[in-house]
Amino acid sequence: MPDPGLLEFFDSPTDQPFLIEHINEEFTSVCPKTGHPDFGTVTIRYQPEAVCVELKSLKLYFQSFRNEGIFYEAVTNRIRDDLAEAMSPGWLQVITDWRGRGGIRSRITAEHGSVPR
Amino acid sequence: MPDPGLLEFFDSPTDQPFLIEHINEEFTSVCPKTGHPDFGTVTIRYQPEAVCVELKSLKLYFQSFRNEGIFYEAVTNRIRDDLAEAMSPGWLQVITDWRGRGGIRSRITAEHGSVPR
Amino acid sequence: MPDPGLLEFFDSPTDQPFLIEHINEEFTSVCPKTGHPDFGTVTIRYQPEAVCVELKSLKLYFQSFRNEGIFYEAVTNRIRDDLAEAMSPGWLQVITDWRGRGGIRSRITAEHGSVPR
Amino acid sequence: MPDPGLLEFFDSPTDQPFLIEHINEEFTSVCPKTGHPDFGTVTIRYQPEAVCVELKSLKLYFQSFRNEGIFYEAVTNRIRDDLAEAMSPGWLQVITDWRGRGGIRSRITAEHGSVPR
Amino acid sequence: MPDPGLLEFFDSPTDQPFLIEHINEEFTSVCPKTGHPDFGTVTIRYQPEAVCVELKSLKLYFQSFRNEGIFYEAVTNRIRDDLAEAMSPGWLQVITDWRGRGGIRSRITAEHGSVPR
Amino acid sequence: MPDPGLLEFFDSPTDQPFLIEHINEEFTSVCPKTGHPDFGTVTIRYQPEAVCVELKSLKLYFQSFRNEGIFYEAVTNRIRDDLAEAMSPGWLQVITDWRGRGGIRSRITAEHGSVPR
Amino acid sequence: MPDPGLLEFFDSPTDQPFLIEHINEEFTSVCPKTGHPDFGTVTIRYQPEAVCVELKSLKLYFQSFRNEGIFYEAVTNRIRDDLAEAMSPGWLQVITDWRGRGGIRSRITAEHGSVPR
Amino acid sequence: MPDPGLLEFFDSPTDQPFLIEHINEEFTSVCPKTGHPDFGTVTIRYQPEAVCVELKSLKLYFQSFRNEGIFYEAVTNRIRDDLAEAMSPGWLQVITDWRGRGGIRSRITAEHGSVPR
Amino acid sequence: MPDPGLLEFFDSPTDQPFLIEHINEEFTSVCPKTGHPDFGTVTIRYQPEAVCVELKSLKLYFQSFRNEGIFYEAVTNRIRDDLAEAMSPGWLQVITDWRGRGGIRSRITAEHGSVPR
Amino acid sequence: MPDPGLLEFFDSPTDQPFLIEHINEEFTSVCPKTGHPDFGTVTIRYQPEAVCVELKSLKLYFQSFRNEGIFYEAVTNRIRDDLAEAMSPGWLQVITDWRGRGGIRSRITAEHGSVPR
Repeated sequence: MPDPGLLEFFDSPTDQPFLIEHINEEFTSVCPKTGHPDFGTVTIRYQPEAVCVELKSLKLYFQSFRNEGIFYEAVTNRIRDDLAEAMSPGWLQVITDWRGRGGIRSRITAEHGSVPR
Repeated sequence: MPDPGLLEFFDSPTDQPFLIEHINEEFTSVCPKTGHPDFGTVTIRYQPEAVCVELKSLKLYFQSFRNEGIFYEAVTNRIRDDLAEAMSPGWLQVITDWRGRGGIRSRITAEHGSVPR
Repeated sequence: MPDPGLLEFFDSPTDQPFLIEHINEEFTSVCPKTGHPDFGTVTIRYQPEAVCVELKSLKLYFQSFRNEGIFYEAVTNRIRDDLAEAMSPGWLQVITDWRGRGGIRSRITAEHGSVPR
Repeated sequence: MPDPGLLEFFDSPTDQPFLIEHINEEFTSVCPKTGHPDFGTVTIRYQPEAVCVELKSLKLYFQSFRNEGIFYEAVTNRIRDDLAEAMSPGWLQVITDWRGRGGIRSRITAEHGSVPR
Repeated sequence: MPDPGLLEFFDSPTDQPFLIEHINEEFTSVCPKTGHPDFGTVTIRYQPEAVCVELKSLKLYFQSFRNEGIFYEAVTNRIRDDLAEAMSPGWLQVITDWRGRGGIRSRITAEHGSVPR
Repeated sequence: MPDPGLLEFFDSPTDQPFLIEHINEEFTSVCPKTGHPDFGTVTIRYQPEAVCVELKSLKLYFQSFRNEGIFYEAVTNRIRDDLAEAMSPGWLQVITDWRGRGGIRSRITAEHGSVPR
Repeated sequence: MPDPGLLEFFDSPTDQPFLIEHINEEFTSVCPKTGHPDFGTVTIRYQPEAVCVELKSLKLYFQSFRNEGIFYEAVTNRIRDDLAEAMSPGWLQVITDWRGRGGIRSRITAEHGSVPR
Repeated sequence: MPDPGLLEFFDSPTDQPFLIEHINEEFTSVCPKTGHPDFGTVTIRYQPEAVCVELKSLKLYFQSFRNEGIFYEAVTNRIRDDLAEAMSPGWLQVITDWRGRGGIRSRITAEHGSVPR
Repeated sequence: MPDPGLLEFFDSPTDQPFLIEHINEEFTSVCPKTGHPDFGTVTIRYQPEAVCVELKSLKLYFQSFRNEGIFYEAVTNRIRDDLAEAMSPGWLQVITDWRGRGGIRSRITAEHGSVPR
Repeated sequence: MPDPGLLEFFDSPTDQPFLIEHINEEFTSVCPKTGHPDFGTVTIRYQPEAVCVELKSLKLYFQSFRNEGIFYEAVTNRIRDDLAEAMSPGWLQVITDWRGRGGIRSRITAEHGSVPR
């Protein structure tokens, strides 16, 4: 079950603005309609305000979706909401890219805050 | 025969703006001039206003063009019109990429609404 | 309906052994179980004995599978049998590569006659 | 000899703005200086005002350059002028990409009208 | 839990020898040492003797490894043994390719029977 | 008109066996059936016996096919025969790869002499 | 230990604005948490004000991180600060791309000064 | 020795603005520090005002750097200055991409005039 | 310092012959001549006789070369010897691929035992 | 001027057979007919008998061809002869791949000794 409580954070090493991108190419959840597994890539990009997300805790948070029945659109918005609430970043973008189903590939993009220059 | 009645929709999981992209790499229709099959990729991108298109129904809608005699330009505008009318999205873009004919590859792009930031 | 009667042939331009390969990247038939279309690439390689298959007639023959409900394995063996009977080639190989279904891509290979040196 | 009289047109299927791109990867003409053949790719992109160029007639028009002695820069501007005069498009872009000569590859770009949003 | 009872078979459409390859790019199991998920691609190649494996049942069989704690080497030999026992193929090859762990990617290959010509 | 008289040769710089490969990616001839141009790549590989073909003369020989109406199979065997007669190489292979026509790409392979170790 | 004292500089060869990019694909440091080595690519882009960084000294500076325990975010900001202080460039961008850890790849971007036109 | 006197020009075939790009993938000069050869790609892009640079003369100009000891930054600015003075183009951009030295690849970019729309 | 004592092993899960390949893309050692770091990829392939090498211990063994001054050829033979002595495999192959130095890339290959069918 | 006296050697680190491959992607010489520079990649593969060629000396040897007027075929056989005489390897292969001239790319292959298993 998706669990934002797994996320840990550390203080940003600088007070100047910079950007962080993490790409998880091993994301999997379950289609709530068919019960078959979905496989995708999750990309998060953000401008930290005060804290950065710790990499191993981020991996465990992503793994907590493994047996959850949830649609593409909901996964994407859920990750955006969990990270935005926990980190209060200046800007946050979440992109999910899903392997084809029935010949159709999908990409969902959600953002929070204002785009940095 | 292209049938927008096949399309089904579900409520957007959030009221914040986000983007959805579906890429169908297995589109085929028939050239109305020569009777030979055309093969292409159809990409749709949209910002949902209230509803999202359900993925399996989108596949069936695309399959309904299989034996239709219709030009590239008409396919593209037809899909744009069908989806725009049924979903009333904030923004919608339809791109079709066609395999070469006589050594010439083609791409047609149609839009609806105003581009999101 | 697959129709080998569409195939036409012309005399080999030489009596020395040589090899011919044709790759059709626009093959489609229908899954007899689900009724959904299948998409694939068909490769034929052969060493002509007396005749070569004419390219446009080969295209029309492949198009005659468009609305046929037929499994991957049967498509491959059917094309091998039709071409082997009509051309009596020294050697013939038919390879079909199918786009993924349920995350699984497939390749079927069938041959006729003895491999050339 | 380049012959714009070969071009045929059909009415745009919609009165809403949209974009068309055709990529001809089999263009050849002759270098007027050395007499050796040049090989390149010609890309045209346009926003139709009232008519679209018919694909087979476009192929024949491109083939009419086959034995013409003409420089890269002149080919590109010639195609731009011929298509702009015949179609009066809202916007037109012609890009030619030439295979290397003496280790140098070239790309020429010409436009007509104002870039669509 | 890996369950070969999920596998279904159909009669080979020909009594001539031919080859079948299925590539599942969405395989996942669990590392028995760390509890973290492993992700990989499973390729099976075989020469059917009397029966072929049905594609959807193969997918469900692969999915039954999803929450199983099992090493790379054991996954590969297990699939080889299950398929060899159930199909008695003339030849069978199982290849697993695993995404990197600690900077190291792995491939395991197991066979059954004698290689076809 | 294809003219082997354009070919020039120079003495092999060594009496030890070695291999030479030339790949011409700018070959064009004309389809004798439709009158449309064909585009392809011609690869020649040979083990010189006494002489090697001079590169610029080879280019001019290939250019002499530019406006010749000739089938793929005939082009390939013609080049094999012309080079074999003129050079008497220990081994010679000619491969032509043709851009797609009607969705079908083709490769023709002809040889002369016995394959080197 | 990271040592900016290793950096050497030479006068810019022009007083007109221009851009310089150096990409080091052989960067390695050590994870302060696990003690395992990290591997990445470091890209620096800058608009010189008065001096340019000498290439060999830049290599030695990058090598001075080899056995340093330091996080991705800190490496990136450290390089930005060291170069900005030593060169006072008009603009400077530092991008680090890190090979995957636990299935997650990362990119960190830091800047100094105002982006050139 | 770099010699702009080798450059020849011809009149622009049109008085409408258009863009020209030439990419020389076979550039070599010598490092003035180590005496070892440097290898790179030189790209020039420009909007002609009245004249265009002739392609063969451009090749000879580039070859005149072959045995010159000169730094990356100086090569780039030198070419920009030579071409800007000789052609007075509306806009000119020179980009040099250098193969790796000590694991570091480099790109230098210099411009002249105002960027076209 | 290279330390084969770091290697751990587990019993092969089967007594039938099979193949294992591990590819470490993050190998680094030091050039004994210049003191500069070398970066490469190490591939090991083997047919286990009784035991398999444990993946994490293999990573630590590779990391023990990090600050060792040692030539490409010696690294390759050293790994071959250490693994052959510790595992007594039926067959073992070690391939090292090194990033370019002075424009030259290198690959070293060493084997032990007889190649499996 | 090509100078094999530049080559240096070191003792093989083992008396067991193994293979070495060096790929120089920065080779240049001059066409003796036109005076224009040629650019290519030189690959050498060998099984050392007693000595290995030192990498930096190999680079200097390759650089000594820089201003030599010499045909592709002669370069390849010259390198083969120089290395075979100096190292007496068990097996040696030299492959040169040349960038296109007049649209034709070339590869020359020469060997010495008997191919290792």
